[in-house]
Amino acid sequence: MTGFVSFVSSGPGDPDLLTLKAVDRLRGADAVLYDDLSAGPILAFARDGADLVSVGKRAGRPSPRQDSVSRLLVDYAAGGARVVRLKSGDAGIFGRLEEEIAALHTARIAFEIIPGVPSACAAAAAANLPLTRRLTARRVQFITGHDTAGALPEDLNLTALADAAATTVVFMGKRTFPALAAKLIAGGLSRDTPALLAEAVSHPDQQLRRTTIGELAQALARETGSAPALIIYGPLAGDGVDAQ
Amino acid sequence: MTGFVSFVSSGPGDPDLLTLKAVDRLRGADAVLYDDLSAGPILAFARDGADLVSVGKRAGRPSPRQDSVSRLLVDYAAGGARVVRLKSGDAGIFGRLEEEIAALHTARIAFEIIPGVPSACAAAAAANLPLTRRLTARRVQFITGHDTAGALPEDLNLTALADAAATTVVFMGKRTFPALAAKLIAGGLSRDTPALLAEAVSHPDQQLRRTTIGELAQALARETGSAPALIIYGPLAGDGVDAQ
Repeated sequence: MTGFVSFVSSGPGDPDLLTLKAVDRLRGADAVLYDDLSAGPILAFARDGADLVSVGKRAGRPSPRQDSVSRLLVDYAAGGARVVRLKSGDAGIFGRLEEEIAALHTARIAFEIIPGVPSACAAAAAANLPLTRRLTARRVQFITGHDTAGALPEDLNLTALADAAATTVVFMGKRTFPALAAKLIAGGLSRDTPALLAEAVSHPDQQLRRTTIGELAQALARETGSAPALIIYGPLAGDGVDAQ
Repeated sequence: MTGFVSFVSSGPGDPDLLTLKAVDRLRGADAVLYDDLSAGPILAFARDGADLVSVGKRAGRPSPRQDSVSRLLVDYAAGGARVVRLKSGDAGIFGRLEEEIAALHTARIAFEIIPGVPSACAAAAAANLPLTRRLTARRVQFITGHDTAGALPEDLNLTALADAAATTVVFMGKRTFPALAAKLIAGGLSRDTPALLAEAVSHPDQQLRRTTIGELAQALARETGSAPALIIYGPLAGDGVDAQ
């Protein structure tokens, strides 16, 4: 009997932001393949005896090659296991599912995708900041701050990104933000455009820093930390306020 | 003692796509103010005796004015209640929180925002369709298909929207899609760009229709239904395949 793969979105990291469906799939899994970003207390939902396999990147250690991850996924499922492939945030947003889905197709293994809370939504909510607003921010966009080589992608649509009437969320963009901000400002966006740097979203050490794109670019040019971070910029990014 | 307001994202409608935190807030609420889109079986999580108050739009009936909703929210909280304001999808995406947040500020009532699964992510997952892909779709954007008067917004950024290297999700855009598609095609996007029409996402009567922007515009020009729908278009929108 062939197994089954559930791509499960874990949300940003706080186990309380798992969906009921994600919890159900974790509880039923024979094997859970996880990236470090999505791990920690979330793995406690897996049953005793389930295989918990780290396949993500770790600071200072080489990460398994993508084809090894795909092979592992296929091997578990072909052996009859119910496999959960845990992905941080929402699996469909910068989750790089395509190679793993292709491998499952080739091996004729059935799968499903369980959607989840994108880290962008969790960061905005933590800052009490809606991502859209009637009349003034009717478009929200998510981009990645680095290409496969780790550099700022060269094919950026600057007319889309330097639009003062949109809210933009940059994933994995801390290191390349100074270069991006220079392009945005050259493209007509004010240096004073509000920005929010959100680090370790929904984790106990979450940090939210309110700033502007000009200031943030200067600050990040001097920083060397590599904590997972999101940058939200646009007219709304200055609106959030402390709730209590 | 003053109460507290939780803006709770309900996700697209399937109760299994609620987060654990959303369930916790529903169980603890004295009053739940809900829009029809997010109601149904989700309200079953509220405790017996909680006030369940519909404040959303209903087909064929006038909807409460926004200031009445805000007043109700403030009145409940000022009376000491733990209030859940339920919002479909993720509350921060086209959830129109701003008036209600402003009213709470004025009344000095504390609140929180619980993020959730955006309907766009649920639609994409149901179609086995990642919203981003390395190299070919590194930007995803969400727009609304109607302005406050129900028409296609006039200030669309067509360079952003007619970008063949992005994935676009149009919320509430079924009726205005023929007009939008005409602009996209005039703006250089191929009529054959893959599109997905997703109706009643995550509900038992969910429907997914794979098409192209040209075909969909023609079909929708003849349709009169007003079921809640999302339209996803872009190079990836044709990729999803049946999982089983």
